[in-house]
Amino acid sequence: MNNKPVLHTILSPRLLDIYDVSNSIVVIIDVFRATSTIATALFNGAAKVIPVNDVAKCIELGNATPNSITAGERDGKIIDGLSNGNSPAEYPRSFIEGKTLVLTTTNGTKLLHIALKNGADEVITGSFPNLSAVCDHLKLQNKNVVLACSAWKDKFNLEDTLFAGAVINRIKENFTIHCDSSLMAEEMYLLHKHEMKNFIRRTTHWHRLAAFGLEKDLEYCVSEDVANILPVYKNETLIIL
Amino acid sequence: MNNKPVLHTILSPRLLDIYDVSNSIVVIIDVFRATSTIATALFNGAAKVIPVNDVAKCIELGNATPNSITAGERDGKIIDGLSNGNSPAEYPRSFIEGKTLVLTTTNGTKLLHIALKNGADEVITGSFPNLSAVCDHLKLQNKNVVLACSAWKDKFNLEDTLFAGAVINRIKENFTIHCDSSLMAEEMYLLHKHEMKNFIRRTTHWHRLAAFGLEKDLEYCVSEDVANILPVYKNETLIIL
Repeated sequence: MNNKPVLHTILSPRLLDIYDVSNSIVVIIDVFRATSTIATALFNGAAKVIPVNDVAKCIELGNATPNSITAGERDGKIIDGLSNGNSPAEYPRSFIEGKTLVLTTTNGTKLLHIALKNGADEVITGSFPNLSAVCDHLKLQNKNVVLACSAWKDKFNLEDTLFAGAVINRIKENFTIHCDSSLMAEEMYLLHKHEMKNFIRRTTHWHRLAAFGLEKDLEYCVSEDVANILPVYKNETLIIL
Repeated sequence: MNNKPVLHTILSPRLLDIYDVSNSIVVIIDVFRATSTIATALFNGAAKVIPVNDVAKCIELGNATPNSITAGERDGKIIDGLSNGNSPAEYPRSFIEGKTLVLTTTNGTKLLHIALKNGADEVITGSFPNLSAVCDHLKLQNKNVVLACSAWKDKFNLEDTLFAGAVINRIKENFTIHCDSSLMAEEMYLLHKHEMKNFIRRTTHWHRLAAFGLEKDLEYCVSEDVANILPVYKNETLIIL
């Protein structure tokens, strides 16, 4: 009898509600750069990260929260009224330790809210900097998993898919997987895992962000286990499990 | 100056309206099996194919159209009230020549209607049996192109993606392509083009349909240029251009 839990990958927030996420762990993936920045800030000692989807709410929560940082970018520039940007490089321990990061993200936060509304049992965030922490957690829990790619304005993107593939490649023996998205994601990861920093130069998101001089940032975002903690969403904040 | 037309690939009907399809040729792709069957029926002399998305309309149009065949399946069986199924093998010249095929398809017809509603300039259908005809047409037209995968109940599928990749691989020099879906589709095609009939055994759709003894059908659907005509949608019917 096969009683392994089931794993699916979804390639855009628009496809999430096709799947039953109740009793599932949903992994929010936004490699460039929200979930890379979240892992990094928490790894470097941030007390918590509060993801919000609009600037007004970011400012409001920043004002209401002692010892907090407000962060968000549009078109590679810090948004007016916020203090910081979306780059993981902005959050070394010397700066972020003990603070609360209130972070505006569009793609990732939207997905997180859909997952919660649809009854996800647990929401965690993943990117290459915390790949092993995500995989170790999923293997231990013995629950159904949805790897949820944030995409870019609902359009499929490769960097999130590659991360989903990296996870699948490491944990597939523990799951039942009948899902073409997952099969594709793992194959794309296997095809490029030894040249990830070159391959990402071919993605549309690279071209969008490299125009703002963010090449080093993007290379960091596909570096495995450099901020290896597990962010879990509880009471509207992300904290280390 | 780069004035090549633009090509995008969309991986599910739910993602079509993110893209501007006005002034574009939309290629409807439903490899298993609607667009393979459509190419085959027209190649074998069908006068036209009328795609409809529900059974009642199929029966109504069948009754209203002289010398017509009604066709559709659910779960591998011919739908009650219709005369034929969805298999390309059911439409040899000896049977279909001169007839009108009224075909119920769910995934492909839905996509076709979204494309028309959103102002597509032209809608054609493609699958491996008419790969070259599709590519030759797209190269000649010098218009923007959207390769639209029908997917399965809105879920990403590999067989439609592989066909999109085959098209991209043959026509990419004629287009501007900044689209992660297209990059992925071409890479998946290149990875598997020499073992397509084996690889499709790993897809979810194979497992769904092979249970009904359709292995030969599915192998036919990934055979290149075996029914090499171009179906174009005009006045609610598909005819050979």
